[in-house]
Amino acid sequence: MKIRVGIAGYGNVGKGAAKAVEAAPDMELHAIFTRREPDSLELPDRSVAVLPVSSAEEKVNDIDVMLLCGGSAADLPEQGPYFASLYNTVDSYDNHSIIPGYMAAIDAAAKNTTAIIAAGWDPGLFSMVRALSEAVLPDGTAYTFWGKGVSQGHSDAIRQIKGVKHAVQYTIPVETAVETVRGGEKPELTLRQKILRECFIVSEPGADNTEIEETVKKMPHYFADYNTTVSFIDEDEFLSSHTEMPHGGMVLRSGNTGENNHIIEFSLKLDSNPEFTGSIMVAYARAACRMSREKLFGAKTVFDVPVSYLSAKDSLTLIKELL
Amino acid sequence: MKIRVGIAGYGNVGKGAAKAVEAAPDMELHAIFTRREPDSLELPDRSVAVLPVSSAEEKVNDIDVMLLCGGSAADLPEQGPYFASLYNTVDSYDNHSIIPGYMAAIDAAAKNTTAIIAAGWDPGLFSMVRALSEAVLPDGTAYTFWGKGVSQGHSDAIRQIKGVKHAVQYTIPVETAVETVRGGEKPELTLRQKILRECFIVSEPGADNTEIEETVKKMPHYFADYNTTVSFIDEDEFLSSHTEMPHGGMVLRSGNTGENNHIIEFSLKLDSNPEFTGSIMVAYARAACRMSREKLFGAKTVFDVPVSYLSAKDSLTLIKELL
Repeated sequence: MKIRVGIAGYGNVGKGAAKAVEAAPDMELHAIFTRREPDSLELPDRSVAVLPVSSAEEKVNDIDVMLLCGGSAADLPEQGPYFASLYNTVDSYDNHSIIPGYMAAIDAAAKNTTAIIAAGWDPGLFSMVRALSEAVLPDGTAYTFWGKGVSQGHSDAIRQIKGVKHAVQYTIPVETAVETVRGGEKPELTLRQKILRECFIVSEPGADNTEIEETVKKMPHYFADYNTTVSFIDEDEFLSSHTEMPHGGMVLRSGNTGENNHIIEFSLKLDSNPEFTGSIMVAYARAACRMSREKLFGAKTVFDVPVSYLSAKDSLTLIKELL
Repeated sequence: MKIRVGIAGYGNVGKGAAKAVEAAPDMELHAIFTRREPDSLELPDRSVAVLPVSSAEEKVNDIDVMLLCGGSAADLPEQGPYFASLYNTVDSYDNHSIIPGYMAAIDAAAKNTTAIIAAGWDPGLFSMVRALSEAVLPDGTAYTFWGKGVSQGHSDAIRQIKGVKHAVQYTIPVETAVETVRGGEKPELTLRQKILRECFIVSEPGADNTEIEETVKKMPHYFADYNTTVSFIDEDEFLSSHTEMPHGGMVLRSGNTGENNHIIEFSLKLDSNPEFTGSIMVAYARAACRMSREKLFGAKTVFDVPVSYLSAKDSLTLIKELL
């Protein structure tokens, strides 16, 4: 029997997740939950049920795992614990610095379910590589570079500001910093020395752009620790030049065994950040179902999940084909 | 209490593992088992007990995990099941095509122990990334490139030829092939299109270099399917420039979500192949002990081990520092 998947929140990540469920040989999309008017959603397949988030309880017997595709700033703190009390869940919560608090709230709710949090690419796959690399090379230095690309979390955060109509944020690695690390040096780099944040905003008529810019640049966690540029553009330019969602980045660890140096590097180059994020969440949905069957309940992270749990293949096939 | 580690087999990988145990904050090296005369081993620390392999049973109460550092061809098929019947074990068995048979033999022996097999970098870390990438991007193509680095097996094969005094073989990825894949294309590549084999040979006085070169290039399995270059150098140059054991390589997956392409890349650049391999085994030794405490007995692979089990840090610290 196929894994029956629900999606809560049908924005960019939700659409990417729906596409990934379709590509998975062992899954089927059962229902989408939205806070919008259900009939307003543009779905590739109208046979999928669309329901209001408030009626989530209706499907507890029909859905094996729920993909929480709302935003980290406003949606997940509320929806995460609510859905985790009813379903196995996977989310890509991405507010790194306050994950422990979010995880505690999810863990308290997930009494009889498995809830995998922060399963995107960062946090997510990049976190796995950071932990793996550190375990293998304890005497070393780790670097994470993001971009160039659009950060959904940061764009979403800007869109919460009053007076903002459209917004996009490009994360850009500082080129000289990347080259220094790749050259085998182990510089100490602040966030500001590593990453530039470039924002393009369309404001509502009559909005105070100076105030918006200041609010962005001072926003804790998201912008305050980085060099940030803000440009206000008109809607036409935004729609013609800033609607794609590429992203990427790399994790590097430069470590030593005595005098010998070793470099571990993991990099991503993504045409569509939300579609790739949705694809990761779908792989972890498989793991959430399996861990739930094994009664491994509560909040989990990518650190807790063996790679075999992500695969649609059985163990012997994995060993024969990929080990 | 620290994890008490034993090492069986004190060649290059065993020495690398000993160094890695020393660097681990939560481990101590308890004994080394060897088939050689125990007093003949050159140890950095003479306080470590050196015992014959045949007396392995003596230490069952003093060692938590045994690192099996013998060769895959002759040592591990015999030593693997023997040690796994007594101890939690980790090995870096690397004969890809016959792993299932080896794993079955280990699994039958590891009734009350946890035995993690094939935990090097390929098989090992590269396998993990291959499985992870495939789970996330099922619609895609995977590539593994090895090098630049020394292949012991190929160097040994050359040394078997009459008239050869010293030889080293460097495996080198074909740069144009790598760039094609990174660019988002999904070419079908033959071994010849992916890998170049570069050989440096010191021949005996009076040897026929033309004949040696021809023998190398026509050698089945090892060289016949690749573009191979052979250079004859003098002994001084060999000893000064070709005695290190660097290696590396990369795993790439180019995959699609609809029209959008995504590239996942994992690469290693290693000054010392055996020291890096020993470091991986030490991280998996931590996992073997933890899985054994949880009674997850039998043969395991890197696919079965969550990343958190590799780390000396507790879960909350991992989440705060690395998620």
